[in-house]
Amino acid sequence: MAESPITPRSQDFAAWYQDVVLQGDMAEPAEIVKGCMVIKANGYAVWELMQREFDDRFKATNHQNVYFPLLIPQSFLRKEAEHVEGFAPELAVVTIAGGKELEEPYVIRPTSETIVGHFFSKWIHSWRDLPILMNQWANVVRWELRTRMFLRTTEFLWQEGHTAHSNHAEAMVEVLRILDIYAEVAEDVMAMPVVKGAKTRAEKFAGALRSYSIEAMMQNGLALQAGTSHDLGQNFGKAFNVQFQSKEGQLDYVWQTSWGVSTRLVGGLIMTHSDDKGLVLPPKLAPVKSVLVPIYRKDQERGAVLEAAHRIAKEVGAKVDDREGQSPGAKFFHWERRGVPIVLELGPRDLASGNIVMKRRDTGTKEIVPQTEIAARVPATLAQMQKDLYAAAKRRLKDNTVLANSVAEVEAILTDVSAETGGGKFVMAHLKDDAACDARMKEFKATVRCMPMVDEYDGPGKCIVTGETVDRRAVIAKAY
Amino acid sequence: MAESPITPRSQDFAAWYQDVVLQGDMAEPAEIVKGCMVIKANGYAVWELMQREFDDRFKATNHQNVYFPLLIPQSFLRKEAEHVEGFAPELAVVTIAGGKELEEPYVIRPTSETIVGHFFSKWIHSWRDLPILMNQWANVVRWELRTRMFLRTTEFLWQEGHTAHSNHAEAMVEVLRILDIYAEVAEDVMAMPVVKGAKTRAEKFAGALRSYSIEAMMQNGLALQAGTSHDLGQNFGKAFNVQFQSKEGQLDYVWQTSWGVSTRLVGGLIMTHSDDKGLVLPPKLAPVKSVLVPIYRKDQERGAVLEAAHRIAKEVGAKVDDREGQSPGAKFFHWERRGVPIVLELGPRDLASGNIVMKRRDTGTKEIVPQTEIAARVPATLAQMQKDLYAAAKRRLKDNTVLANSVAEVEAILTDVSAETGGGKFVMAHLKDDAACDARMKEFKATVRCMPMVDEYDGPGKCIVTGETVDRRAVIAKAY
Repeated sequence: MAESPITPRSQDFAAWYQDVVLQGDMAEPAEIVKGCMVIKANGYAVWELMQREFDDRFKATNHQNVYFPLLIPQSFLRKEAEHVEGFAPELAVVTIAGGKELEEPYVIRPTSETIVGHFFSKWIHSWRDLPILMNQWANVVRWELRTRMFLRTTEFLWQEGHTAHSNHAEAMVEVLRILDIYAEVAEDVMAMPVVKGAKTRAEKFAGALRSYSIEAMMQNGLALQAGTSHDLGQNFGKAFNVQFQSKEGQLDYVWQTSWGVSTRLVGGLIMTHSDDKGLVLPPKLAPVKSVLVPIYRKDQERGAVLEAAHRIAKEVGAKVDDREGQSPGAKFFHWERRGVPIVLELGPRDLASGNIVMKRRDTGTKEIVPQTEIAARVPATLAQMQKDLYAAAKRRLKDNTVLANSVAEVEAILTDVSAETGGGKFVMAHLKDDAACDARMKEFKATVRCMPMVDEYDGPGKCIVTGETVDRRAVIAKAY
Repeated sequence: MAESPITPRSQDFAAWYQDVVLQGDMAEPAEIVKGCMVIKANGYAVWELMQREFDDRFKATNHQNVYFPLLIPQSFLRKEAEHVEGFAPELAVVTIAGGKELEEPYVIRPTSETIVGHFFSKWIHSWRDLPILMNQWANVVRWELRTRMFLRTTEFLWQEGHTAHSNHAEAMVEVLRILDIYAEVAEDVMAMPVVKGAKTRAEKFAGALRSYSIEAMMQNGLALQAGTSHDLGQNFGKAFNVQFQSKEGQLDYVWQTSWGVSTRLVGGLIMTHSDDKGLVLPPKLAPVKSVLVPIYRKDQERGAVLEAAHRIAKEVGAKVDDREGQSPGAKFFHWERRGVPIVLELGPRDLASGNIVMKRRDTGTKEIVPQTEIAARVPATLAQMQKDLYAAAKRRLKDNTVLANSVAEVEAILTDVSAETGGGKFVMAHLKDDAACDARMKEFKATVRCMPMVDEYDGPGKCIVTGETVDRRAVIAKAY
């Protein structure tokens, strides 16, 4: 792909994002399949690193990976009333297969609670069969009208956890354990601070008792729901007749949970850290952590520089970009756009001085480091960069979170286009968990993102819409 | 799932296979989705280990993972005439999405050459853009009439490699490099010997110039095509107009390859090693390599046995099965059916003697080992078991490979139900690569599996059908 300029964030944030994704070899639109993308090499490598981080944590908490069919009989969706209402408009339906019209069409899974429910009813008979703690890595399809690479695509890749328990308390422990894992990976690995909280009833997963999410703030102040964990109660247990005999000999329906993160996280990662020069990746998720670019002008310099470059790169664990026919400048540009955290430069002058030049992707600062120290300095710098990226994102979240004590204040904040992020703010306001209150916020193109688990503000207060007392402020924001 | 007896192989091989799959927690049929299965925890864990082995080798040979859309515009399939003819009967078609009838239906990918071809035409312009070496891990759907868990399912998981090159020679190096990787994983990791060879024209991939495969022999003597690597020539390049400017400034079509292995390999693994007691896994692909079952009859024995069990298990890297309410016998049975290579038993008598009992899954032999030696003996035994399983499979392949010098001999061998494997043999015969010869073999319900890369027999000879001279014997067998 030819490399072209990146639109500055201040000029057009959406165009900037698209440029960063394209120029960073992360993805490209698959315009011939509605709302789909091709995930390209750098993007898929980042996703693989993320997958490993989540998967290790799921396994460490006794979850096992399994795989359910892509296709689900259409009638399954109808068994849970809220669920079908939520997903029916987005379904892709297979009506012909093997050259014949199907008697009963299949839908491509938009999520798998229904088919999992069907198998739970076959597998679960006694409390001894519980808990079941499963996860699957899979693709899903939801026919979305407005799409954007990674953030919302008709097909996306994700993991969906499905668990069954003998009582509500145990299911809730699971829901919150997973929310903690999601927050941990977001903050410690993605360097993306998040707010953990409960969704309002109006915003919960179709078929859940209650949904919980982690919400991140992008650089333009918009919210991104970055992971969800659902308390399904006994809703799917009843819909699919998943009954078990309790220790006390009673028949009861199972309590279920489901939870997921998706390739949308890659979009969140990009929008959290990247800059006007292109992609910035936190070191823990950088497929290539450091690249060494050898610099030489004359053929007689070449041998000595390349020899030293390969020797140092081996010590450091860096990749040597020794491509012929490309200038050093073109190479720096290439790796910068791909978000490589550290680029090292080594030329004849460095050979003479025993130094090497180290450049950090996030700050752009160049430092001259003795070659004897570089093997220690690179990992230390990567660790520092990981911390600094988190701190910068955390500061932005804090700076763009504001309190509001009336609907008018909420409106003023969310429509103030003079501010740096425009109306991109997390507005903290007391708001009742009531569909009418959610609807009122939608008038400002905002939604209630969550009711935080931890109250960092002033405790109970009066709902800005109904005047009723609620126990803490909710997060209201425009969102992807 | 309740555990029930496993049908002996000698009684009904197909029923035995199904029992091993079910009782080994590998998969279960998803009867509500035609020809699909649920891959269960043990089966998926084996697949993950296989994936890692392949993926590491793909990456070491400079392939990058990417992801293309699941859905392909139906018209794309028609662009390559042979391709559409081969796949059209097996397609699942999405005609409705987002509540509306689609103007152009999508097919669920049966394989991705067509959509890859579309993007190659966007990405490739110059010899500088080549080679492109890509792979994707994905699900595909082919509406098969007769299905069997893992071996043939309407949906399956696989990897599909897609590469583009500037000349045929380089593409052929790629085709054979991948075939070598497939054979290496099959033999060194799966302990499953294979024959590498070219498919006949009648059996090649729809749209390829030539297909190559690895062919394994199951315990009943039937062949299993375990991986394929295709020389696509310029067929898809022409169909999708993928042209590049060569170094010499000429416009030319790219030369492509594609190659894949799938969850079918899990079925091959099961049918290669398992026995009448259930699943047997080669140690390199066993998700749990060793389990320690503590044995105690009285409460006063429990503490000392469990303490020693956990201490020894930690040294060995074994999992301790300390579930309460399960007898040691039930635990042995449980792990045996799941194919765990080594089970250790530790009871009060062993504590007194300083020994521990080690049982091998494949041979069933029990050995008393001093506790001080067990940490070294377990890995040594796993390594020996890996070798022994390969040797046993290799011997079986050799014992059931026979020469034939006439069509009558081929027929006699393939219909001799008195032999141990019945007509399950690899018959080596001189046979021309001609559709009529393939068809003749089908009269005996057999197919030409491949024309081996290496001639281990007697060189050229006369085709048993046409009398024409061919350069070596082909493998003819019944197959899954």
